[in-house]
Amino acid sequence: MEAVIFGASIGVSVLAFLFAAWLYRWIRRQPSDNLRIEELSGLIRRGANVFIGREYRAMAMFTLVASVIVFVLLPSPIWQPDPDIGILANVQMLISYLIGTVFSATAGKIGIAVATRANSRTAVAATKGIKPSFLCGFRGGAVMGLAVVGACLLGVSLVFIVTDNGTALLGFSFGASSLALFAKAGGGIFTKTADVAADVTGKVELGIPEDDPRNPAVIADNVGDNVGDVAGMGADLFDSNVAAMAAALVMGSALDKIVGGGSGGGSGGGSDRYYVTTVFCYAAIGLLASIIGVATARMGKKGNPTSALNASTYVTTALFALLTAGATLLLDAYWRPGAGGLDLGLWRIWGASAVGLLVGTVIGIVTDYFTDDRRRPVRQTSLASKDGPAFTMLSGMSYALLSTLPAMVGIGVSALAAYLLCAPLGAASGNEAEFAFFGISMAAVGMLSIVGMIISNDAYGPIVDNARGLAEMGNLGDDVVEITDTLDSAGNTVKAVTKGFAIGAAGLTVIALLGAFLAEVNEAAAKLGVKGFNGFDLMNPYVFFGILVGAAVPAVFSAMLMLGVNRNAMRMVDEIHRQFREIVGLKEGKKGVTPEYDKCIDIATTGALRELIPAGLFAIAATLVVGFVGGVDAIGGYLTGNIVSGLLLALFMSNAGGLWDNTKKYVESGHDGGKGSDTHKAAVIGDTVGDPFKDTAGPSINTQITVCSLVSSLMSTLFLSFSLPALF
Amino acid sequence: MEAVIFGASIGVSVLAFLFAAWLYRWIRRQPSDNLRIEELSGLIRRGANVFIGREYRAMAMFTLVASVIVFVLLPSPIWQPDPDIGILANVQMLISYLIGTVFSATAGKIGIAVATRANSRTAVAATKGIKPSFLCGFRGGAVMGLAVVGACLLGVSLVFIVTDNGTALLGFSFGASSLALFAKAGGGIFTKTADVAADVTGKVELGIPEDDPRNPAVIADNVGDNVGDVAGMGADLFDSNVAAMAAALVMGSALDKIVGGGSGGGSGGGSDRYYVTTVFCYAAIGLLASIIGVATARMGKKGNPTSALNASTYVTTALFALLTAGATLLLDAYWRPGAGGLDLGLWRIWGASAVGLLVGTVIGIVTDYFTDDRRRPVRQTSLASKDGPAFTMLSGMSYALLSTLPAMVGIGVSALAAYLLCAPLGAASGNEAEFAFFGISMAAVGMLSIVGMIISNDAYGPIVDNARGLAEMGNLGDDVVEITDTLDSAGNTVKAVTKGFAIGAAGLTVIALLGAFLAEVNEAAAKLGVKGFNGFDLMNPYVFFGILVGAAVPAVFSAMLMLGVNRNAMRMVDEIHRQFREIVGLKEGKKGVTPEYDKCIDIATTGALRELIPAGLFAIAATLVVGFVGGVDAIGGYLTGNIVSGLLLALFMSNAGGLWDNTKKYVESGHDGGKGSDTHKAAVIGDTVGDPFKDTAGPSINTQITVCSLVSSLMSTLFLSFSLPALF
Repeated sequence: MEAVIFGASIGVSVLAFLFAAWLYRWIRRQPSDNLRIEELSGLIRRGANVFIGREYRAMAMFTLVASVIVFVLLPSPIWQPDPDIGILANVQMLISYLIGTVFSATAGKIGIAVATRANSRTAVAATKGIKPSFLCGFRGGAVMGLAVVGACLLGVSLVFIVTDNGTALLGFSFGASSLALFAKAGGGIFTKTADVAADVTGKVELGIPEDDPRNPAVIADNVGDNVGDVAGMGADLFDSNVAAMAAALVMGSALDKIVGGGSGGGSGGGSDRYYVTTVFCYAAIGLLASIIGVATARMGKKGNPTSALNASTYVTTALFALLTAGATLLLDAYWRPGAGGLDLGLWRIWGASAVGLLVGTVIGIVTDYFTDDRRRPVRQTSLASKDGPAFTMLSGMSYALLSTLPAMVGIGVSALAAYLLCAPLGAASGNEAEFAFFGISMAAVGMLSIVGMIISNDAYGPIVDNARGLAEMGNLGDDVVEITDTLDSAGNTVKAVTKGFAIGAAGLTVIALLGAFLAEVNEAAAKLGVKGFNGFDLMNPYVFFGILVGAAVPAVFSAMLMLGVNRNAMRMVDEIHRQFREIVGLKEGKKGVTPEYDKCIDIATTGALRELIPAGLFAIAATLVVGFVGGVDAIGGYLTGNIVSGLLLALFMSNAGGLWDNTKKYVESGHDGGKGSDTHKAAVIGDTVGDPFKDTAGPSINTQITVCSLVSSLMSTLFLSFSLPALF
Repeated sequence: MEAVIFGASIGVSVLAFLFAAWLYRWIRRQPSDNLRIEELSGLIRRGANVFIGREYRAMAMFTLVASVIVFVLLPSPIWQPDPDIGILANVQMLISYLIGTVFSATAGKIGIAVATRANSRTAVAATKGIKPSFLCGFRGGAVMGLAVVGACLLGVSLVFIVTDNGTALLGFSFGASSLALFAKAGGGIFTKTADVAADVTGKVELGIPEDDPRNPAVIADNVGDNVGDVAGMGADLFDSNVAAMAAALVMGSALDKIVGGGSGGGSGGGSDRYYVTTVFCYAAIGLLASIIGVATARMGKKGNPTSALNASTYVTTALFALLTAGATLLLDAYWRPGAGGLDLGLWRIWGASAVGLLVGTVIGIVTDYFTDDRRRPVRQTSLASKDGPAFTMLSGMSYALLSTLPAMVGIGVSALAAYLLCAPLGAASGNEAEFAFFGISMAAVGMLSIVGMIISNDAYGPIVDNARGLAEMGNLGDDVVEITDTLDSAGNTVKAVTKGFAIGAAGLTVIALLGAFLAEVNEAAAKLGVKGFNGFDLMNPYVFFGILVGAAVPAVFSAMLMLGVNRNAMRMVDEIHRQFREIVGLKEGKKGVTPEYDKCIDIATTGALRELIPAGLFAIAATLVVGFVGGVDAIGGYLTGNIVSGLLLALFMSNAGGLWDNTKKYVESGHDGGKGSDTHKAAVIGDTVGDPFKDTAGPSINTQITVCSLVSSLMSTLFLSFSLPALF
């Protein structure tokens, strides 16, 4: 059965790629006959490719340095090679690491390629109506979604089949995360630099509309949507998905050793590794469900794009729950042929992943409450804005702080439920904790099962946002702009629900990674012949010290990114002022006079690359310092502090940003004074603050936590040998 | 020796009260011959007394209900009375609880009485020069400082001597905290309601100066300074101080049982309870050092009030370090008469408290960096404000997020150092953890040793702030206003340093209370005959669930307070608009036309009382829910999550508020455009957001954490018996 499922995983990945390629060709075949729009779209595509090129070159330098470190030190220092397979372990680790970065980068590249082509087609299609336009935007996003999840499943399968080693998988995951850390942060800084600078000079100072072609930052703003929200976000979710699978496989392998899976003994398919096979089975079903969800997505008769997007999400969710139940039935029957056969507790594991899926949905719906303009938080913030921007700030931040409670409780409850469901499986063998953490990782896999849909919906957003800009700049008329506006606001609404899934899943994944870390530590301790760890006691001062320091890291990391956006946006504002001053006729919109778009793109690119490095290095360095100063105990606490404050800040920032965005839109649609009123000015200020919150700092925190977790797991041997408590 | 030190503690408390009474008489003898100022000061005093009266009546109702619950349930339910002393334990608990509330309330009352008299004298004294004015303001603050610390030491001494019971002391501490929770939150809502409403209508809408007597909110604003920053802050630090002593005494008593102190055995003073005696000795020395610090405070020749305030703080710090070293020498010699005598490790304990003092100073200095207008954060935020308020927000929040790192690391390092210093003392008896947590509590006692000076300096602030308002409203001339301005800004500067101590000490105290909680749980478990706890393992799902929920509680608590301020300020803004509309001649400043100040005071009072109750109850209810759902393990995690996110948010909010306040002042002093410029408008918006951050939500979080800790410790028996995991 194991070989069948492994084969099926690879098969489904290939299917995903084939379907993505078909969609890509479909998009390229859509009409794109407006020269002005093609020209603008070309500018955006060129800008995005320049940025991605320079970013990937910088990443390549980082990867080169990191490769040497990885090879020399991981999983064991080469002067103390792995007792089982020697230096081959380091080679496996290095190759896995490199594959992780390359797969992640490739998925990002694909996303950019399709998104910067789908934008013009979506704009042109909007001249024929909302339905074809929607389909074009959605399918553009789906290419990215399927490519990312396909690459994830394919990469994980190959690495696991070839190396047969959980630690190498963590290396693959580390490659994906370290790329995601920079891609997400760099893209986030780029996009918000351009967005904020364009808003401040355009909307606020000159009073010209968004996407006005006179604004030198307008192309950079559209490029930013692609590099930040398509490539960056794709790298982020690729990373989460790989990390969740890696955690599940590391712990699943351990369980298989416990129950004797893969040993050829046992009944039925005794040569199968039961739990590992189950993980691949779930992952393949998740991707299959996403493919079906994408393929069946259509706008209904009422022409409501929000319902269409949500419907495909719910189709995927339901399909996943049903198909995994069916698979559980089959696998259970196959592995337990007669009465009194081997009980692997597969139904409990299915329960854990169903809990993850359910809680993800609940978190999404609750998050939606705090950012929906029909609800109290947005309405009250709009009302408060009448008294000035200070009240916009206070009201928005207060509701965003409140919004953290349901998600934190939800993550806590799902982890607890998954733990309690699966712990009894280890009762007989005394391995409750191992089974329990496997359960938590399966809850994360469950929450992430619909990640293909999440990415599709998320990438749909910037495509239709770009299309809106192109429609405006290309003078396609008010009707077309209105259609793209409707599509755009649908993207914002569904984002709230999918973001609930993404943050919840990241939370569960890092909790599972904490379990993986403990497993790695104990494996390393056994090899070194030192005492293993049962857990991390809060009463241990090193653990507590680690918690306090770990909690401060996401705060500092996000602050560094926001200060980077600030500095960078100010540089760009200066450049825009210069252009308006020096280019004659630009301000007045004289025919034939165009701004120097490239200069702004260049500032955003250079600045983003300069600002993202210190933040990423800080997170990695802080982990190493805590590990070498306080040892493994301190790292256990550090990761916990990191998870707790990271989730809190990510939820706070994402929801505050979403709330302010929708408050602005609510006022613009004519409430509490409408466009141009003082309320509107206050709401615009709120939105400007919210932009780096929700699109730079907030989402980057997830990746930062994952990177710190993986660095800790990979360095566990070194922390055991060379930390201060180990030395004294 | 024990009796001598107990006597000395009570003696020093009485001395503090006598000195405070002398200072109070001194203040009342200062000239106050300006009728207009006396009238205005009378209005402020009456307003403050009305609020305090109504607040205390509301508190009395709460206390009445809580008393019944305390008596019925604590420390053991009356249907399962304490096995040793039966129902007497509940009586002791009830009386301790009531004394805690009464002492805290009395100290607040004293503070209001002196502050509302010192304000007019300080204003009048400013007509003679800065030195007499400074002395008047400083001594007014000192009365509050000495009264609070005297009441704390006296109360703790009496409760401990009479009941001889650590749990009863936690009841005393709970009384103090529950009062502080409401006093700090209620006062904080009151003061910021008035401040924000006065600023929005006065400075922003009408362009009239701060403290303009035409503004109906101006008296409420001055009342707010007293009820929020004097009474509320005093209750807060009373609570921290009591909690730190209670934690030290609970754990000191346990240590005395271990080493056989108080048993009459051992060498030297074998009938002494060594560690308990040491705690009282340190506390008495701290108060004595504060008395000397206050008595010697004078402005030097250069007439710089900041140096004068800092000098008295450093005098107190140095005195405490020296005197405790002397006491350690004496006690060690007394208790260890010959070679090979009993080694109590007193020097290690002294080291722990010295570490606390040192780290407190470092945190203070670092915090100062982020709020000082000669440093990068304020300068950059001012510069960013040129591009509009969105950048004021982003820059300020980013620096405030950065500012959390040094304080979190500092608290972590001091807890770790204290632990490592003191743990070896228990190595022989196998009680490392007990000694270590005692060490942490002594580090907190060390940090809080100068609490008398902290409160003096903090209460000095609102007095001179009031004096500034009175000088302006009473037309004492520009020179006098300038003198009071100088005194006021000195108050703001020293606040940053003392606030570092306060937050650091609160952090250490709650960590120590976590130790006290574990001790209480194990004592309760022994009585119930169930298995005790070694600690709280992060890998335990209940612990992790508790951490996630606990981390969200300070976020929700502070959001509820800020939303309360928002709602209340809007009500007051409506009232001010009404008065300007309906009272003829008010806007124009016609002679003889005065606004209806009382209406605004009434709105602030009613609103504050209405808004503070839900937030306080939420914190208590959340603790109970987690305890009954997840049991003792979940509570261990819950308190940890609470501490970590509470410290993070408190530091973030306090420092953001201080940074924005000083940015505004920096711009007002003529930088980046100066008063009236767009930069200034942006900076004022920053300050308005910062006000509830730094004076309502931020400082209330400390109290909220302490209350949750104490509720948990007191309810430990019930959580052990009736939680879901205990039942199943």
